[in-house]
Amino acid sequence: VTENKIVTSRENPHVKRLDALLRQKKAREESGLFVLEGARLCLDAVQSGLSIECVYLTRESAEKTPALLNLAEAAGQTVWLSESLAGRLGETKTPQGVFAVLPACALPRLGNPKPDGRYLLLYQVRDPGNLGGILRTAAALGGDGAYLCDCAEHVSPKVLRASMGGIFRLPLAVVDDMAALVARLSNVGVQTFAAAGGGTTAPQVLAGQGGKAVLIGNEGNGLPDDLTAACTATVSIPMKTGNESLNAAMAAGILMWEMIKDS
Amino acid sequence: VTENKIVTSRENPHVKRLDALLRQKKAREESGLFVLEGARLCLDAVQSGLSIECVYLTRESAEKTPALLNLAEAAGQTVWLSESLAGRLGETKTPQGVFAVLPACALPRLGNPKPDGRYLLLYQVRDPGNLGGILRTAAALGGDGAYLCDCAEHVSPKVLRASMGGIFRLPLAVVDDMAALVARLSNVGVQTFAAAGGGTTAPQVLAGQGGKAVLIGNEGNGLPDDLTAACTATVSIPMKTGNESLNAAMAAGILMWEMIKDS
Repeated sequence: VTENKIVTSRENPHVKRLDALLRQKKAREESGLFVLEGARLCLDAVQSGLSIECVYLTRESAEKTPALLNLAEAAGQTVWLSESLAGRLGETKTPQGVFAVLPACALPRLGNPKPDGRYLLLYQVRDPGNLGGILRTAAALGGDGAYLCDCAEHVSPKVLRASMGGIFRLPLAVVDDMAALVARLSNVGVQTFAAAGGGTTAPQVLAGQGGKAVLIGNEGNGLPDDLTAACTATVSIPMKTGNESLNAAMAAGILMWEMIKDS
Repeated sequence: VTENKIVTSRENPHVKRLDALLRQKKAREESGLFVLEGARLCLDAVQSGLSIECVYLTRESAEKTPALLNLAEAAGQTVWLSESLAGRLGETKTPQGVFAVLPACALPRLGNPKPDGRYLLLYQVRDPGNLGGILRTAAALGGDGAYLCDCAEHVSPKVLRASMGGIFRLPLAVVDDMAALVARLSNVGVQTFAAAGGGTTAPQVLAGQGGKAVLIGNEGNGLPDDLTAACTATVSIPMKTGNESLNAAMAAGILMWEMIKDS
């Protein structure tokens, strides 16, 4: 890279676009693009076979992690940034000097439910850390994918970081109407289980064969009554008496494990 | 509270002590005391029957949460703080104007292992958020308690926050020698299972009757070979191929669930 090819100004059009995609949901939605930050996520995306539209790289990060040059080769375009500019753009505490812009349509998409599928249904999961953590767990445990309704934006930088690349391999679909999806799952023979606190049906009901889906609600408000009632059954993790509670991602993880372990 | 009883200076001896207990591990260790911050944790401690040595309270927080006056009554001593002083002392983003100082010996203590007990063994779990999350899950799922060896300090403000009060009800013991504990558990008939990535024994081996313990290692380095070899068996959560991994607290939670669900 010759010095005169290194962008130092925040006013550069490539940099303005990167900045907008990092910070504005609207920019991501209008363009259909999203951004990965950091060597680990960016390299993971390439290894997962996602197409990269553009890579933003500092010379320093390419020297430190030579594999990033392969990333630049795989991408349609490479923009070289000065280290100080990259540090000012980044959202992470320790700037890593590499960003990748990807089309959202490159992510694996979940299609119509199959009769013997194992699905995760997420309704109004709004905390980015929880959503990312749940998607990371779902990708690791397996299953056929997750349907999201009215959740945090799954291609926001925070969710992407918390998902640790799980989103690159977990088929996802965003749906507008969770009640309609529950009915559709039921029609194809997939049993739906609403996660709730204090119920009497233990998670072991999720074990065994057949199509199944676990429905997880909002961290604070849980699930609306009509959605819960539309499901095949309600499922609860038994808690010791006291003020105990499980973190939302932990509860979702245990239910997914019960659903997927024998499949 | 009359105005002249409200402490405004950081130089006040009570405040200096609170500040040291919040910020210095050494001060906590030497005094055998620790600090809770925030109404939720403080009230939870009282409801769990823990003895409170001293409460630090702002008039504003007592007006907002009248239950805190019961806390002040239950405590041996109450120190009233000005709102600005309380805000400067606090570690949380939104200062809540209440702190409680407790003796560490008031926490439930885990004694000798029982032949039919279900235990969690934590070795070098160093991330405070992970440790607190694991203790929260262990308290919620039940079981007989956790043995900690060379972990993050369990009465540090960060671990206490992440544990969400679970530590008030989960019997704990800190041990110096995990290998000796594994041998002791084995001697009384408790099977020990070392959590590891990539092994072939699935978590279902943890189900069923009898005394059991799951051993969780460091987030980055896992468990040392000699500790793993000393256990009855190694247990791994099967992962989908790819770069998938589970968060340490999530993996611990799934293993605890498998161990405890049928007990």
